[in-house]
Amino acid sequence: MLKAEIIAIGSELLTPYRVDTNSLWLTERLNSIGIHVHLKTVVGDDEARLEETLSHALRHSDIIVSTGGLGPTEDDITRKVFARVTNRQLKLDYEILENLRQRMESRGFKMTPNNERQALVPRGATVLPNPNGTAPGLKLDEDGKLVILLPGPPRENQPMFDICVMPELEKLSRGIRIATRLLKVTGIGESQMDDMIAPIYQQYTDITTTVLFTNSEIEIHLAAQAETLTQAQARVNELAEKLEEKLDLYCYSSRGEMLEEVIGRKLKLKGYRLATAESCTGGLVAERLTRIAGASDYFIGSVVSYSNEAKMGLLNVTKEMLDRSGAVSGEVAEAMARGIKEQTGATIGVSVTGIAGPGGGSDAVPVGTVYIGLADDVGASNKRLILPGDRELIRARAASAALELVRRRYLL
Amino acid sequence: MLKAEIIAIGSELLTPYRVDTNSLWLTERLNSIGIHVHLKTVVGDDEARLEETLSHALRHSDIIVSTGGLGPTEDDITRKVFARVTNRQLKLDYEILENLRQRMESRGFKMTPNNERQALVPRGATVLPNPNGTAPGLKLDEDGKLVILLPGPPRENQPMFDICVMPELEKLSRGIRIATRLLKVTGIGESQMDDMIAPIYQQYTDITTTVLFTNSEIEIHLAAQAETLTQAQARVNELAEKLEEKLDLYCYSSRGEMLEEVIGRKLKLKGYRLATAESCTGGLVAERLTRIAGASDYFIGSVVSYSNEAKMGLLNVTKEMLDRSGAVSGEVAEAMARGIKEQTGATIGVSVTGIAGPGGGSDAVPVGTVYIGLADDVGASNKRLILPGDRELIRARAASAALELVRRRYLL
Repeated sequence: MLKAEIIAIGSELLTPYRVDTNSLWLTERLNSIGIHVHLKTVVGDDEARLEETLSHALRHSDIIVSTGGLGPTEDDITRKVFARVTNRQLKLDYEILENLRQRMESRGFKMTPNNERQALVPRGATVLPNPNGTAPGLKLDEDGKLVILLPGPPRENQPMFDICVMPELEKLSRGIRIATRLLKVTGIGESQMDDMIAPIYQQYTDITTTVLFTNSEIEIHLAAQAETLTQAQARVNELAEKLEEKLDLYCYSSRGEMLEEVIGRKLKLKGYRLATAESCTGGLVAERLTRIAGASDYFIGSVVSYSNEAKMGLLNVTKEMLDRSGAVSGEVAEAMARGIKEQTGATIGVSVTGIAGPGGGSDAVPVGTVYIGLADDVGASNKRLILPGDRELIRARAASAALELVRRRYLL
Repeated sequence: MLKAEIIAIGSELLTPYRVDTNSLWLTERLNSIGIHVHLKTVVGDDEARLEETLSHALRHSDIIVSTGGLGPTEDDITRKVFARVTNRQLKLDYEILENLRQRMESRGFKMTPNNERQALVPRGATVLPNPNGTAPGLKLDEDGKLVILLPGPPRENQPMFDICVMPELEKLSRGIRIATRLLKVTGIGESQMDDMIAPIYQQYTDITTTVLFTNSEIEIHLAAQAETLTQAQARVNELAEKLEEKLDLYCYSSRGEMLEEVIGRKLKLKGYRLATAESCTGGLVAERLTRIAGASDYFIGSVVSYSNEAKMGLLNVTKEMLDRSGAVSGEVAEAMARGIKEQTGATIGVSVTGIAGPGGGSDAVPVGTVYIGLADDVGASNKRLILPGDRELIRARAASAALELVRRRYLL
């Protein structure tokens, strides 16, 4: 298997504020054709460090991909350092220069010496055109190692990589093809899930199974390797189906969809229309549902009743009930769900009320207590949860729990 | 200035799904005492690669901090590889072993040989206790270089680093102290802003000024270096004040606060209460306001009127107006703002209606068209924006624009 190394170049990536994310997309593309990423490095605009990193990479990796450091400013050193490491002269490429000049002039700018630097090309390198920016990429063969120098911005380096680099890499990786599937699981603990499925996936030694845990769900990444994509897909689909069957209702998607996507598709299919009433989640359930384009087909709207007045004024929850049971109670959750259903004429009303903290908890109703309410034409019900985590996590988990309850109750 | 290098260890960090974020927090801590991070590396559970990376780090850095690879599984190789690179024997530490045994037994587990591995210590290393997990950290001096091996989870490595490592690093960095300030700016373009402030910050050659752009705002990070923290703070405060004065209303915080924090504080101070009516943002404005604990002091609630029925039923927008002007119009934005103000009794009603796309646009009302409405006791007004970006970006920018309009109109 070919070994690749990714180098992210730029001092902003060594500050406390920015992380290199280009490498995630590049890794996905490289993995898809059976190329393994075995090292990632982040270097600043620091010639000595970049020189060491490049020399080391040329000794240890078959494919080296760098992002950044190709721009027009003094700090952009990739071109120069690479030429030095490989003992290549830099020559001015007049075609690039002319393109740059036209691009600048069409925008009313004048060419500067700084900009000319972007037209320097190490001898023997292939220029990768950049329709979305000024800095072209570069590709070279150095003693059988393939080196790809890409600009930093994703909207520039992604099309460049797909169009100018992937075809060559596909040839290099000599017919190894990878097919992937992503299962999304919720409502079950990590170790309990692994006990269920390990006996199945362990039989598929040609498939890499990676289990990752996020705030409120589990991702099972499957990657099968074969000589053709069709063969790899057949293998990965076989395992995905077995796992999906075993996980049953815990698995809400076997194709990597978001929970709100799955719910939206099924609500539309059934002709149901949803409305939400939210207290502690503050609009997060509605916000997640409306991330999906076309949500207006099945989502009417929401009331965020953050105060008791809003619960009374907008959702017809009575003062007596709030005094009697408290705003964080199963009774109020049901009343909120009924209220929003009545106000909007939705098929299903779903509500969330709880204490996200850090303040506001008590012995009887501690921080993390959340009630989900559901109302339909038949009646109303509620579910009590105690969610761990800080304010942000409790809100995220409460929103996921509300969406998941709708799926389990109405959409299986 | 001392040079540090951060190594993140773990194969999951070489997948397309996970990025190393430990290094951001560590960089912030190191920078705060004048230690510069000059390289970051991500290696998998791969002994050969880690060995090379550690050897290289010992040659080029004064301080080496690694995270991960200290756990009980076969894959956790940090301890072993480090001992090999530095020619140190691994010895079993009976105190760690006993702590592990007690910890496991108190939770009803039995000690396994895998767990015993966590009690191996390279000769000469100092053990860093881990009150929040099983794997202790390690600290060693190797030929004058300080090496810190930390476990991967932030809730384990952060207190460990602060308690057991920072005091020693503060001594090593010999009285270099750094003070930082973060200015947040919105409503102005990048180059226009830089033209305004560059003549000021360029005079402060002892202060590092880093300008970063996010979706809808600009961050200006200032870091001043001096012999005492008081001196450094005085310098950075002087520059921050000059920049804040120059940027005037464009600068909504000079202390790194979020826009919703600033708005919340000022609403509370003035005794105003806010309510929102959202269409294309789907609840995002309410969700952002309620990220701040205590938001109920100034935020009553929101109506997410994703459908026209919800605009009519929950906000009293008339069918005639919707037919006449269309849901995405200044007239409807004002009616939504008035509607939510009346329904909730808020001091200020703010509304957002627009087309986030990708579908739904027309020549007259293209994707990205957003109207913000404001209503108070005096009257109502609206502002039209054309926002660039995809669905997610347009929603994020529309929410920021709504919050910023409230700040500019009512809270300066």
